[in-house]
Amino acid sequence: MQTLLREIRKTPLLWTLAFVPIVLVAEAVAPHSHTLLFVLAVLAIVPLAALLSHATEAVAAKTGDAVGGLLNATLGNLTELIIAITALRAGQYMLVKASIAGAIVTNAVFMLGACLLLGGLRYHVQEYNRASARLSSGLLLMATVALLAPSAVADLEHLPQGGGILNKLSLGISVLLILAYGLGLLFSLRTHKELFASAGHGDDDKEAHWPIGTAVGTLLVVTVLVALVSEIFVESVQKAAETFGMSPAFVGFIVVSLVGAAAEFAVAFAAARKDRLDMAVSIALGSASQIALFVAPALVLLSYVVGPKPMDLQFWPGAVTMMMIATVTSAFITASGRSAWFVGALMIFIYAVFALTLYVVPPAGQG
Amino acid sequence: MQTLLREIRKTPLLWTLAFVPIVLVAEAVAPHSHTLLFVLAVLAIVPLAALLSHATEAVAAKTGDAVGGLLNATLGNLTELIIAITALRAGQYMLVKASIAGAIVTNAVFMLGACLLLGGLRYHVQEYNRASARLSSGLLLMATVALLAPSAVADLEHLPQGGGILNKLSLGISVLLILAYGLGLLFSLRTHKELFASAGHGDDDKEAHWPIGTAVGTLLVVTVLVALVSEIFVESVQKAAETFGMSPAFVGFIVVSLVGAAAEFAVAFAAARKDRLDMAVSIALGSASQIALFVAPALVLLSYVVGPKPMDLQFWPGAVTMMMIATVTSAFITASGRSAWFVGALMIFIYAVFALTLYVVPPAGQG
Amino acid sequence: MQTLLREIRKTPLLWTLAFVPIVLVAEAVAPHSHTLLFVLAVLAIVPLAALLSHATEAVAAKTGDAVGGLLNATLGNLTELIIAITALRAGQYMLVKASIAGAIVTNAVFMLGACLLLGGLRYHVQEYNRASARLSSGLLLMATVALLAPSAVADLEHLPQGGGILNKLSLGISVLLILAYGLGLLFSLRTHKELFASAGHGDDDKEAHWPIGTAVGTLLVVTVLVALVSEIFVESVQKAAETFGMSPAFVGFIVVSLVGAAAEFAVAFAAARKDRLDMAVSIALGSASQIALFVAPALVLLSYVVGPKPMDLQFWPGAVTMMMIATVTSAFITASGRSAWFVGALMIFIYAVFALTLYVVPPAGQG
Repeated sequence: MQTLLREIRKTPLLWTLAFVPIVLVAEAVAPHSHTLLFVLAVLAIVPLAALLSHATEAVAAKTGDAVGGLLNATLGNLTELIIAITALRAGQYMLVKASIAGAIVTNAVFMLGACLLLGGLRYHVQEYNRASARLSSGLLLMATVALLAPSAVADLEHLPQGGGILNKLSLGISVLLILAYGLGLLFSLRTHKELFASAGHGDDDKEAHWPIGTAVGTLLVVTVLVALVSEIFVESVQKAAETFGMSPAFVGFIVVSLVGAAAEFAVAFAAARKDRLDMAVSIALGSASQIALFVAPALVLLSYVVGPKPMDLQFWPGAVTMMMIATVTSAFITASGRSAWFVGALMIFIYAVFALTLYVVPPAGQG
Repeated sequence: MQTLLREIRKTPLLWTLAFVPIVLVAEAVAPHSHTLLFVLAVLAIVPLAALLSHATEAVAAKTGDAVGGLLNATLGNLTELIIAITALRAGQYMLVKASIAGAIVTNAVFMLGACLLLGGLRYHVQEYNRASARLSSGLLLMATVALLAPSAVADLEHLPQGGGILNKLSLGISVLLILAYGLGLLFSLRTHKELFASAGHGDDDKEAHWPIGTAVGTLLVVTVLVALVSEIFVESVQKAAETFGMSPAFVGFIVVSLVGAAAEFAVAFAAARKDRLDMAVSIALGSASQIALFVAPALVLLSYVVGPKPMDLQFWPGAVTMMMIATVTSAFITASGRSAWFVGALMIFIYAVFALTLYVVPPAGQG
Repeated sequence: MQTLLREIRKTPLLWTLAFVPIVLVAEAVAPHSHTLLFVLAVLAIVPLAALLSHATEAVAAKTGDAVGGLLNATLGNLTELIIAITALRAGQYMLVKASIAGAIVTNAVFMLGACLLLGGLRYHVQEYNRASARLSSGLLLMATVALLAPSAVADLEHLPQGGGILNKLSLGISVLLILAYGLGLLFSLRTHKELFASAGHGDDDKEAHWPIGTAVGTLLVVTVLVALVSEIFVESVQKAAETFGMSPAFVGFIVVSLVGAAAEFAVAFAAARKDRLDMAVSIALGSASQIALFVAPALVLLSYVVGPKPMDLQFWPGAVTMMMIATVTSAFITASGRSAWFVGALMIFIYAVFALTLYVVPPAGQG
């Protein structure tokens, strides 16, 4: 407990944990102040996500390489997963799909671009390991293709009404994706772990000495807190979005992705500014891969348990295009193993153009 | 003749040549047992394709570099070509187009992926010649773009009824593609043959001593046999497909491609397991290029002679997307010159997702 | 003045400057001979574009690195810009958009392909600097994605009538693109100019000794002449196109692009034939980037001042696909840093297929 408190005192970001009780109280006191609740929920989720990420790593550090790697890989996008499950339970499928698509694009374009820009502002030209970047981006490219195949490839407009076919297809593909994810864990944690060596989240010196009890306890408590705050977030976001003129697609794509990945941003940005672009690139692309291979199919499977009706994997056409552009662009950019600030700046411009387009012209279907 | 018999005795696959007379007899005895005829025809085509490939190489070995290379390159996909011509004569254009699209995707994704997986299961990391892989994949990318341009680029929905425009466009593009193919032969067999040196089908020790008479005779006889069995295959496939719940698109895309390329699979897989990934990659990508630059336009031109009406080059949208994804992915994957088993496994997953999608949601148009 | 005359006498291309007075007289004498005027205008624009390019470089050479680089970069596509502005004033938005799309594709596919082919006919294999080619093609890829995002990503079909949203979006994106262009100038002319060193237009020995007065005077006079001839060109092109059976989209995409970039072709082709592929690749890809990041958004902004109504950035779907294919293909082809003649030939085939498709099946909308 003291370790935890010391950690919190050292890290200014964690001071905003104060927003967690505030938002829970505010929900009880003023359940209809949607905009206020939305803002408070965002402010509360960011430090919780950071703490969740620290706790996961602390547990991972104590449980040895194999289980630890598995934990890190599986819980790396836990915040996104919890928010999406909450949205799933509320039947807000457009928000869920937008947050999946947005998480891939935000990780592969914004996070990568910001790392290249931040690193480039400090170092004239940054070199990094091309081979491992190429591996990460190749896996991301293939993961995204597998996820998007039904949306891109199937002649979905001519489907008979009812959509049972689409659900069967999405279920089959989810099983294939999770199978691929399992093989990927085998590959990165066992047979070829040396290829991913530099991709560790580092910071071991800081987390390593959390006692296992504190770590597991923190993990459990914070997971519950994230779930509670996520519920307020998802409830308030629709109404608040209307106030700000945002569509559910924009909120899911941009706001949820940025909020959910805040903890990883912090780690990746710090790495980029220390000229450790290998780690930054690996976090950005690895996180995007994990969304495609694990979070997305897991949500389809979970929708059968917790959702009002099964969710399918059909994304709106613009989301498909953005995900494909994001993965091809990041694959091409990281293939060279060199970077300068303008490359990162251009990626952020692309993200800004995506965001602007999505803000001004939201997708028609709200399914 | 004895050479041929010795060859057959040595190669267990060729024992299944016994299915050739069986399917021909079965067709005469039970012309309405479509499923049985379909299965028998598949079992008969596979060894015939292997024998055709051996005979082509034997003739090529005797006729010197230039003519031999030309023969190898032109007859490399002879089985696919014969099956497609048979379908063309029967007016089954959806089956023909699906088999063109499927051959490109099957070669560039499944065959390449299986090579990387099989090689990767035996060798920890496989290195191969990046420069020649890049050349092959660059040529495939451009060949596919040229083939797909009308489907991808033209505003075909707004075409006036009648479709004469589409046929004129397809004819013009077919002439351009075959011209490009001719220049490609000049390039790979004459001006820059050293770049393709390692791409030879090897096995020279085995075939080289076939007498030229045996080789040419085998080539001719087997071509006639493939044509006969293809007729049974194409006749029975529609009805059999309905029994198995497959659409013509699925049959053309998956079944015909796998059956037609079986002989090349055998050679490429053997090369991959001997750590000769250069050759495996070159066979997979070269075969896909040849479909785009030679087989597809040849079928358009032949449709004016043997088909009930001219065939055009308009593919259904999902096929266009799958071909583009297949070539971009294989280009990206082979650009690194390194591979491990999971890369191959992911490619096979993508192929499985494509197949599943096509099985569950067949394209609407059956044109 | 004498310097200018000597320059003209030395360069056979500039003799065709004689067509400038001829077309101006012809316009006055026979304003309805559209086909004649069109042909004369094309013949007059080509040498004017060459002279404009020389004058720009001469001024740039006198004004020092920073301003000179800025001038070269900004006025590099001045001919295209003037023609497009003339079309804009005439309200021919399809012609303007087609010339933007065509300039990107013509530079990235035809000019690059012709350089690789011309160089490859003289040198067996040409090697060039991969790092700088990769940088150029990465910037082009991202510039094109940013330009195309609204067309590719937005669900434009479901937009409410009126289109005010589309104009707002295009305006916002134009501002972002020009901002990115400004940062790009900062990058290429100041912070990282050493990366672009070999990309200089060379020929310094020839232009360097133009007196500044001659250079600036020529620049101004030729700009006015290009504007005058462009007016005749744009007026006559519609009618002439009908005579030749060309749509406005084809004229803008192919004819305007080839005419407008003729001067750069000359420089790039000369460089390729001297085995200076670095410079040729850099001119081709750099020019395409500049169209996407500067010319296109500048035309949107100018449409508010000179056009009958604001222009948006929505391209017809085929144009989007062609631009994406062009940039991905050129990125992939230049990533290897090696080339032989067939690679260039295939790129020209792709361009021919695009042109044929656009000629036979023009886009439906003429907006």
